[in-house]
Order: sequence, then structure tokens, then C-alpha cells
Amino acid sequence: MMRLDASAWLNGAAPATEGKVVALHAFQMLCPGCVAHGIPQAVKMQQAFPELVVIGLHSVFEHHEVMTPRALQVFIHEYRLPFPVAVDRQVTGSPVPATMQHYALRGTPSLLLFDSEGRLRLNHFGSIDDMVLGGVIGRLLAEGHGDSPSCDAGGCALPG
Amino acid sequence: MMRLDASAWLNGAAPATEGKVVALHAFQMLCPGCVAHGIPQAVKMQQAFPELVVIGLHSVFEHHEVMTPRALQVFIHEYRLPFPVAVDRQVTGSPVPATMQHYALRGTPSLLLFDSEGRLRLNHFGSIDDMVLGGVIGRLLAEGHGDSPSCDAGGCALPG
Amino acid sequence: MMRLDASAWLNGAAPATEGKVVALHAFQMLCPGCVAHGIPQAVKMQQAFPELVVIGLHSVFEHHEVMTPRALQVFIHEYRLPFPVAVDRQVTGSPVPATMQHYALRGTPSLLLFDSEGRLRLNHFGSIDDMVLGGVIGRLLAEGHGDSPSCDAGGCALPG
Amino acid sequence: MMRLDASAWLNGAAPATEGKVVALHAFQMLCPGCVAHGIPQAVKMQQAFPELVVIGLHSVFEHHEVMTPRALQVFIHEYRLPFPVAVDRQVTGSPVPATMQHYALRGTPSLLLFDSEGRLRLNHFGSIDDMVLGGVIGRLLAEGHGDSPSCDAGGCALPG
Repeated sequence: MMRLDASAWLNGAAPATEGKVVALHAFQMLCPGCVAHGIPQAVKMQQAFPELVVIGLHSVFEHHEVMTPRALQVFIHEYRLPFPVAVDRQVTGSPVPATMQHYALRGTPSLLLFDSEGRLRLNHFGSIDDMVLGGVIGRLLAEGHGDSPSCDAGGCALPG
Repeated sequence: MMRLDASAWLNGAAPATEGKVVALHAFQMLCPGCVAHGIPQAVKMQQAFPELVVIGLHSVFEHHEVMTPRALQVFIHEYRLPFPVAVDRQVTGSPVPATMQHYALRGTPSLLLFDSEGRLRLNHFGSIDDMVLGGVIGRLLAEGHGDSPSCDAGGCALPG
Repeated sequence: MMRLDASAWLNGAAPATEGKVVALHAFQMLCPGCVAHGIPQAVKMQQAFPELVVIGLHSVFEHHEVMTPRALQVFIHEYRLPFPVAVDRQVTGSPVPATMQHYALRGTPSLLLFDSEGRLRLNHFGSIDDMVLGGVIGRLLAEGHGDSPSCDAGGCALPG
Repeated sequence: MMRLDASAWLNGAAPATEGKVVALHAFQMLCPGCVAHGIPQAVKMQQAFPELVVIGLHSVFEHHEVMTPRALQVFIHEYRLPFPVAVDRQVTGSPVPATMQHYALRGTPSLLLFDSEGRLRLNHFGSIDDMVLGGVIGRLLAEGHGDSPSCDAGGCALPG
């Protein structure tokens, strides 16, 4: 089962994840790779796979004094993020927050994928190709009996 | 079952497709959208999904006099295509070749995806997003019992 | 003459601009268009035109409470900006800072180009194509007697 | 003075070049780097700099039997090239055509820039960054007294 230790939720409440394939995207608002690649890819995941639950996770492990929840709120607003964002809970005596520690994330951006039974199936640090990522998500959705593309004599339709 | 009517095979013989998920990429060597988007995406499909069978299909429906098999051979060499290419058979009295007619392709590039039982599952004209396409292929591979990404306590690995 | 009203300089002191062509790039650290396009283009300008003086200008006109000089310092560090950045001076009773008001900037990113005699020659809001921008800078440098590309019998060399 | 030895002109007659800055873009229709980068950049040059004369040069040095003028004509049509294209004259006993030999081009794509007095000022093989290229063209146009960007109290305008 996904373990997400949030001190706050911004941009919406914690979504229901039971029986769903879930993408948890860990980022920091002042991390260049997150802003350039990770976050746009997370937005794209939600558009490409409507049955996927996409969650942002703000896992601050440096410069805590400027990447505050208030600053994050402005960031979410300016970047028009379309998914809820959990603030990863700070841990006394460590710069690394709780969820980041639990999954031993190596940095940001990191992407965690959970299957429909809540098992961790991908834990990826850094960038990942769109097509490869789409393939992984497609497999997880198919396991969980998501729709598949279908054709009849008249033509073929993409799922979703 | 996939129906491919080839007058010649270049860059390798007709591959075995029985029990395999197959991507048939229809293109013309002087079609700008094919060269810019379709062909690079077909190459990427093969790299991202080693268990997928990728086949090029040269479906010439205009300017036949310059898009000859000999010119195609040079094109394949210059672009270093990594998959076999079937020459779609010309039909007497029509500019549109046989396989293109059979699947009622609207133009080039077109992408046909067949599942592991040979059923047509996607027939797409024009460009398609990498992530969306990866998702469709991932679903088809999962149906056919391809490998899925897996994690254990130590970490997670991408399939393939 | 360029008029720049800075309350602080970060990432280096105010550069000498006398007799130089100057690019003044106005941005906000939480402005998506600045981060995606404007700032990378400013960095590229400095690399492409060593004789050009590039200056960043942090012109905050909203969310002042999170885009503080301290947060900007972290931003400059994380994005490894290679040019000095002036903090545009806040004006009592207005959200719009002094330099931004003086040049009637419409928003961020904005690019101001000054010729070698200090005259404003370009005031552009939003994105601008790399080739078009290169053309404008090349003209201004040529007016100011910068190096031009040159060829002899053995070959040709790019300036700079 | 530019020396261009053409056996034919396609897509328009030989343009007047006297007193003009000229970009001569050498390519082959089946050269991947030309199709992906060189030709789109040549098209962009013409759009960005209306006072620049852009000329295509089809310098075939291999696979002559398929890169014929007839095939080139189809290529020009399919890619909607907006500038005239000279066919570089074949030389008896050599695969390398006349203009390519004269300027000792190392391959395709190659870009030659001539100033308004017909002197060669850039001879570049391979890809070149848009901003750097824009800078070189801007300098050559400024030498030849092209328009420069200008500002007055009300605002600023790009040239062209």
C-alpha cells in the first residue's frame, strides 16, 4: 500500500486511490529538472490516462526557508498544476522529509508508480522517456482491467 | 490476422509475427510528416519495446516514378532504419497500393497495431503522442503476457 | 542611457556598460514563461555573443512575499545563472517596481536591448525567436564595430 | 563574387544577387541532417530576414541515380520550399559537382554566406545554432546598411 506522509494538501484534498493505478511525482519547486521535465510530464500523464490518479509530492530536502507551503501555493497557481499536491512531512533532525525517506528517493524529480493493489512497481529518479513511461503505465492499467484500444470494421478508437 | 501484400522486402526478410504484438508503420520516403515524426517514432518503438515486432510499409500512392524500390533502398541506408521494410504492392489501374487499400489508410504516415492474436487494434493516421502510443503498446503487451515492471525491497526495474 | 534602479545586486556586481551593447532581461523567478524560455535564451545570448553585456533584472510585480531576494539567491544558485542579477527597486504604494515602470514593461519576460551609446533599441515582451533575436544583436554589434565573420582562402571563422 | 555553376534551376529562376547579402544552402534531398535541420533553417532564414537572398543548392555527390532533378522537383513540392533551387553541375569523372568542388564543401548540409559585395564570409558544414547564425546575418546586413531596430518614446519595432 502506498505510504504518503503529508503535512498538508494543496490544490485539492487527498484523492481516493483504492483500486486505482497511482503516479506519485516527487518534486521541489526550485529544482530545474523538475520544472523543465518532471512536472510537464506529470501533467501529460494525467491528460493521457484519465483513469490514472496523479499526485504531486513536494519533497523539500534543501533551502527549506524559501520553499515554504506559501511559496508552493504561488508556484501551483502560476504553473496551473491540475493535480493535488501533498507537502512531504518534515522530520525533526533531518533535512530529508518522511515520504522521501520511506521510499529512499535519491532526489527530485522522482516518479513512483503503484498498481491497482497498492504495490510499488516503479521508483525512478531523473528523467524517463515519454514512450517508455507510457508503456509502463499501459501495462499497469491493463493488469487492473482498464480499457484497451479497440477496432471494428469501421475503424479503431484510442482508449480514454 | 495481419494482411500484408508486399511486392518486395528490403532491409531484412519478412519477420515472424505469430504470437507477437506487431506495429506496421506505413510511410512514403518523400512525405515530410513521415520523415519528421512517423519514422523516428517507429525507430523509437523498436528501442523502447524489444518484444514488439516493428515493420515498415512503403505505401506509395503518388510520384511513383521517383519513389522506386531503388530510391527506397538508398533512403533506408541513409536513415539507418533498423527494421525490415515491405514494399506495398501496386495495383493495376489504381495509384493506391494493395495493403493501403485493404486497411483503408487515409494517407501517410499511418500506424497499425496488431495484438498477439493478429487482430487489428489501432489504425491511426497522422501523428500520435509518444506517451499515448506507449500506453496503447503497453496494454497490448500486457494482454499478451509480456513482462511488467517489478520492484522489490532493493529497488525497481524497467521491463525489457 | 540605460536607467536601472536596483535595490541590490546578486551573483556579481553591477557590470560596466559604457560603450557596450547591453541586454537587460526582466524576469520573475516564479514566472513559467521566464523559466522555460526567457532565462535559457538570456544564458544563450551570453554564450553566443561574448562581447554583449547580459544583465538579469528581477522585476517582481506580484507575490512579493515569496519572491524575496533570499529566494532569488537560491533560484540563481539552482539554475546556475552566469550573469549578474539586479533586484528591481520596489516603489512605495505600487506593486510595480521602478525600472519596470520606467520602461513601461508589459510583464515578464521582457527583453531590453541598448546599443553601444546607451540608446534603447528593442523593448520586447514575451518570447522572441532565437534567429530573429540573433539578427538584432548582430546588427547592434556591427554598428558598434564588433568583429564580423571572416574568410580567407583556407576557410572561414565565426566571430567570438 | 559568388560562383554558382548550375545545370538547372527549379522552383524559380536564378535570383538577382547584386548588392545583396546571399545565403547559399547546399543540401541533398536524401541527407537526413539536411532534411531535419538544414532545410528548415534555410526556410526560417528567409522568413526572419526578408532582405536576405536565400538560394538552395542541390549538391549530389552520391546516389546520383535516385537523386535526379525529377526526384528533386517532387521533393521541393512536398516540402513546399519557398526559395529557388540550383542543381549543382555534375563534373565528368568525379562524383563531386562543380560548385561543391569550387568551395571545397566538406559535405551536406553546408551553408555559405556572401556579403553585399559578393565576398564569401561564412562557409559552414553541419549544423549551426539559430542565434549564432542570426548574429552573423545581422552583422552582414548592418554592414550593407540594412534597417536596424529602432525605438522612440512610444515603443520599439523589430526591423523587416
